[in-house]
Amino acid sequence: MSQLKNDTFLRALLRQPVEYTPVWMMRQAGRYLPEYNQTRSRAGSFLSLCKNPDLATEVTLQPLARFPLDAAILFSDILTVPDAMGLGLYFAEGEGPKFERPLRNEWEIKNLTVPDPRDHLGYVMDAVAQIRKSLANSVPLIGFSGSPFTLACYMVEGGSSSDFLQTKIMLYSRPELLHHILEINAQAITAYLNAQIESGAQAVMIFDSWGGALSHSAYREFSLAYIEKIVSGLHKEYDGVKIPSIVFTKGGGLWIEQMAAIGCDALGLDWTIDIGQARKLVGDKVALQGNLDPLVLFGTPERIVTEAEKVLESYGHGSGHVFNLGHGISQYTDPENARILIETVHSSSRKYHEVSSQ
Amino acid sequence: MSQLKNDTFLRALLRQPVEYTPVWMMRQAGRYLPEYNQTRSRAGSFLSLCKNPDLATEVTLQPLARFPLDAAILFSDILTVPDAMGLGLYFAEGEGPKFERPLRNEWEIKNLTVPDPRDHLGYVMDAVAQIRKSLANSVPLIGFSGSPFTLACYMVEGGSSSDFLQTKIMLYSRPELLHHILEINAQAITAYLNAQIESGAQAVMIFDSWGGALSHSAYREFSLAYIEKIVSGLHKEYDGVKIPSIVFTKGGGLWIEQMAAIGCDALGLDWTIDIGQARKLVGDKVALQGNLDPLVLFGTPERIVTEAEKVLESYGHGSGHVFNLGHGISQYTDPENARILIETVHSSSRKYHEVSSQ
Repeated sequence: MSQLKNDTFLRALLRQPVEYTPVWMMRQAGRYLPEYNQTRSRAGSFLSLCKNPDLATEVTLQPLARFPLDAAILFSDILTVPDAMGLGLYFAEGEGPKFERPLRNEWEIKNLTVPDPRDHLGYVMDAVAQIRKSLANSVPLIGFSGSPFTLACYMVEGGSSSDFLQTKIMLYSRPELLHHILEINAQAITAYLNAQIESGAQAVMIFDSWGGALSHSAYREFSLAYIEKIVSGLHKEYDGVKIPSIVFTKGGGLWIEQMAAIGCDALGLDWTIDIGQARKLVGDKVALQGNLDPLVLFGTPERIVTEAEKVLESYGHGSGHVFNLGHGISQYTDPENARILIETVHSSSRKYHEVSSQ
Repeated sequence: MSQLKNDTFLRALLRQPVEYTPVWMMRQAGRYLPEYNQTRSRAGSFLSLCKNPDLATEVTLQPLARFPLDAAILFSDILTVPDAMGLGLYFAEGEGPKFERPLRNEWEIKNLTVPDPRDHLGYVMDAVAQIRKSLANSVPLIGFSGSPFTLACYMVEGGSSSDFLQTKIMLYSRPELLHHILEINAQAITAYLNAQIESGAQAVMIFDSWGGALSHSAYREFSLAYIEKIVSGLHKEYDGVKIPSIVFTKGGGLWIEQMAAIGCDALGLDWTIDIGQARKLVGDKVALQGNLDPLVLFGTPERIVTEAEKVLESYGHGSGHVFNLGHGISQYTDPENARILIETVHSSSRKYHEVSSQ
């Protein structure tokens, strides 16, 4: 990783010394940026944007042209894998992702197969390679996927849900069917993330957006166990360089000790947990990424500074912290407020990384 | 409370010895019961049902006629207080609660006043008195309200929200305005719950449905602090009988130690926390109510029994546990599955309350 001009993000994930706390923002390439909305309207739709490597590269780089971010993240969707399985991903205006062919019958579940990422997901690999080239070793590129359980929720429900009724009916009445979906998903995601690494991703993140809807015991059995399978199957190094992995279960604050034990390098945290308390719980097992409430960015400049500094202070001295929001940045955010946040993190964090205090 | 034929629920809340673990279900009077749907269609709408003491009494008693539940809960809505403040509560079909006049301007917030519960909320007090009389000392009656923060979310947003954007914009940019709403709400809810106690409620519960959307520090400042004010202002006894209070923040599992310190008698838990771990954290400060995932009731009978027994076993021996779901029962639940749950809790819990094992 020495060829990178700025490898602060990777060093923080590996809990190696850094000069300041690196920062990136979930959904940093997105609708709060006017330049993103222009590219998206040229693409025609969100999905066309994801599937066009030139345009995906363009929007991935947009926030980096504006702000001194410490990492880029592939512009894509968390549901590309089930789309490649043939479920037919589409976006109804204002309604979020949907599948044309959700899993409704046992035979559909039994017929699921692991897609070859180089084949049906070639557009993602092309985007990764092109973004990596365009970044020209400025900052590292993060690849990502949804988690097996989160994908399964969408695959079974056919779209978003407030309570995941169909998924949980399956979980409590036909658990073996859900386990079958999760097993296929875990294999598919492992292959998908490894292909992203081979195409140029320098870190990978697994988004478990809906694991937090599960009971504590169901979380272990139906979400974390399959994330662990993926993590154990990921390339730990590629081309002689370590590839850190980040696991983020939104609403998973109660389970971080278990999560820290599955072999990943870092955990993403939402804003409900105090990051300092989380650090005490996980010890030196993993780095932590987070965890500002994204709606802090609607506060006054003074408030944004204060709240960002509270997170830095709570984490305290030493490496192992990647600053981020606790969830994606809101589409209504003023980009200038994102700038205030990023600059605050860079300037206010230096004192926590002075050698004498580590 | 000695005149009650079954005071198991009240004794468990006060951590006094019981013979078995008492059980009731959030939203036990509701749409999963065909008799409820009949009464509701007679009433014309959900709100007419809430505002008609005869019909509210009828539906409150329906689940008790079917099942051996250990408590009744007032049939009402969590948003009656802001309705009494003049915001105009209504229910758009399939959309949840809305307000005709949400708080949009500073002067509207400054003009908020505490409603007299005997006046604008007289229909609730009439329902409480009538239900209490109809129960004829069979089981205790629970009164309730939404929490100050949860009411404020609806008052500011004007309805449900996935991210509470308007409320959080106020929180981070004009916190003094939100504090003013919360202060008025806390005073109004204290008066409202005390009036329910004076009308016959034998325990009270505060539903903080949306506190879990806050960051850990904002939760303390904008939700828990105001719940604490209410709890400290509640009648602790009425007519010489103790009135236990239950506080439930959905998604509040990370904060239960703070919650246990505010002076309430019990905490409600959703299904994301292991109730045995929660018991270790709160010690003998409070009783615990919960915490089965309501969607377990879509499982096979065997699965329902197994999952209920897991909760009982996790809590372990001794009093201080009120069995409940971690959230309201789903409208799609088969009532026979609710019966399986209730009977399992009654029969399987006896071994945890044998004197030799306490």
